[in-house]
Amino acid sequence: TYVRGFHTVTLIPGDGIGPEISSAVMKIFEAAKAPIQWEERNVTAIKGPGGKWMIPPDAKESMDRNKIGLKGPLKTPIAAGHPSMNLLLRKTFDLYANVRPCVSIEGYKTPYTDVNLVTIRENTEGEYSGIEHVIVDGVVQSIKLITEQASQRIAEYAFEYARNNQRASVTAVHKANIMRMSDGLFLRKCREAAEKHKDVKFTEMYLDTVCLNMVQDPTQFDVLVMPNLYGDILSDLCAGLIGGLGVTPSGNIGANGVAIFESVHGTAPDIAGKDMANPTALLLSAVMMLRHMGLHGHAKKIEAACFDIIRDKKVLTKDLGGNSKCSEFTEAICQRVLDLD
Amino acid sequence: TYVRGFHTVTLIPGDGIGPEISSAVMKIFEAAKAPIQWEERNVTAIKGPGGKWMIPPDAKESMDRNKIGLKGPLKTPIAAGHPSMNLLLRKTFDLYANVRPCVSIEGYKTPYTDVNLVTIRENTEGEYSGIEHVIVDGVVQSIKLITEQASQRIAEYAFEYARNNQRASVTAVHKANIMRMSDGLFLRKCREAAEKHKDVKFTEMYLDTVCLNMVQDPTQFDVLVMPNLYGDILSDLCAGLIGGLGVTPSGNIGANGVAIFESVHGTAPDIAGKDMANPTALLLSAVMMLRHMGLHGHAKKIEAACFDIIRDKKVLTKDLGGNSKCSEFTEAICQRVLDLD
Ligand SMILES: CC(C)[C@H](C(=O)O)[C@@H](O)C(=O)O
Ligand SMILES: CC(C)[C@H](C(=O)O)[C@@H](O)C(=O)O
Repeated sequence: TYVRGFHTVTLIPGDGIGPEISSAVMKIFEAAKAPIQWEERNVTAIKGPGGKWMIPPDAKESMDRNKIGLKGPLKTPIAAGHPSMNLLLRKTFDLYANVRPCVSIEGYKTPYTDVNLVTIRENTEGEYSGIEHVIVDGVVQSIKLITEQASQRIAEYAFEYARNNQRASVTAVHKANIMRMSDGLFLRKCREAAEKHKDVKFTEMYLDTVCLNMVQDPTQFDVLVMPNLYGDILSDLCAGLIGGLGVTPSGNIGANGVAIFESVHGTAPDIAGKDMANPTALLLSAVMMLRHMGLHGHAKKIEAACFDIIRDKKVLTKDLGGNSKCSEFTEAICQRVLDLD
Repeated sequence: TYVRGFHTVTLIPGDGIGPEISSAVMKIFEAAKAPIQWEERNVTAIKGPGGKWMIPPDAKESMDRNKIGLKGPLKTPIAAGHPSMNLLLRKTFDLYANVRPCVSIEGYKTPYTDVNLVTIRENTEGEYSGIEHVIVDGVVQSIKLITEQASQRIAEYAFEYARNNQRASVTAVHKANIMRMSDGLFLRKCREAAEKHKDVKFTEMYLDTVCLNMVQDPTQFDVLVMPNLYGDILSDLCAGLIGGLGVTPSGNIGANGVAIFESVHGTAPDIAGKDMANPTALLLSAVMMLRHMGLHGHAKKIEAACFDIIRDKKVLTKDLGGNSKCSEFTEAICQRVLDLD
């Protein structure tokens, strides 16, 4: 039963608080009359032929067809040799860019104000190659793999993103003073992309210097692009500046419009099922998704409603400093969405 | 002319503001009657037999004899193939532990208060192995090398440090979920050291989680121990929390008492020779040095004098928010040292 004019999105509610925050998002989308139809799928990995871990076929098929997914938190697998679900998803759908806008939320107090930056992380190679060896007893090597192709792809993406999102500058984050060949290659590709996008300012900075400057004055940064591990670190650091993973959206972008948007916080098993969870990170990820799909009007309205409710401070979940239930917070946002109409 | 009862220390004034801040430290040490005799040496690298870059022989000889060095900032070499001086010094003297106490300075305002932690960085291997290859055109690998020996040495050092400095806990920082073998080995050695030091609490945490938690609440951390690159990043991040490299001391520790203490900021060529530099980072590094040598009384007095002058806010260099010259700031600390007698 597909509704005309509606986009179908694969919804992966996830574990723990995942189902609750997913319903919250669905409710708010309904209130906002966002033309999205959800197709729910479970992605718990299964063992395929040859013993390789894989996404269940019906989830894979759904994503292949819809191209767009929204995903709640997944619990860390415990089986030996079981990959992280996040890594498996990135790999299965070649989601090469991890994008995290970190924007200060008015009314939600942290030591910083006016943070407004985006980390763009290469999501497929680097320190995450998975190639490791024991050389001799007690001597181990891990291989960081950097390719021209992946570096070029992410560098291009960063500049396109900056242009499409009216952002003035891109900073390449690297340690090419130490890893001259690998980070050197990455940096070279960023410089080449910069040459092609002269409308966007380009700077380069050592990762350690970025960390130092970031905690002293994050407002100096705009778009940052970097290899995999550096992105893992910086994206969490920046999330911390604006209030943590509970309020930070994230998108994993692949080629040809394929993308999965997700909240990057955990499953919070201690409060699961208790109507206490904060759906903000998943909601803002869903807003990123709407923008990705070109549904800017709906994105703007939902985002504004969410920020209004947080700024008002009247109906907030516990982690946001309030006393309200997840359902009450959700209801308040829905009401605000209607008021904005 | 060696004075009885005095310790001789190799002083590497360095470039840019290096000489000014070095004289400031010497003046303050004299006022405090610290029993230190300085032996000045230049460490600008030279090309040895076979074209290998090396520390000049008289600087090497001085360090070998004195075992203890104090070093100002060195300008980044520009010759191709020239190593970073920092890396060359760490290598030449096998300075395997980089130690950076980050303690909030009363009266010097940053977004954080009560930071009181120490990062301990493995200083000899890991991502800094320098081993890189082009596999095929456009595909490069860098090798992260982790050994049992170096991991054990730094893990042991961290626990010994915690015990000797009345610190309650050690956190091992890693990404063993991704680099299972290399960071896995590092982590295993930390766990083993923890087993031997049951008086010190041990925790382990992913690097990304540390970064997130660090900017949200640094007071939860005490001693942190980690592989080379993670230490590069976290030590700068933590320096940022307390006011930056201008106020952060650092020590590079080797075996058998060998150590070089240094300010980790740059040479600030724009203000060099203008009596505007802030000697605090080098002074606090020299205080670390005194503690390393067991001269706790002198260390305490000099440190107290420095912190008093910063807290008073009357005589501060420009970067600290004041209008005073380096010489005036130095003079104020000297006077305070005498008052404390
Ligand atoms: C869960 C883990 C494998 C993952 C990573 O290290 O990339 C996580 O930290 C992330 O940032 O998505
Ligand atoms: C100068 C550079 C080689 C060095 C490093 O990366 O280790 C510096 O950042 C440091 O922390 O001492």
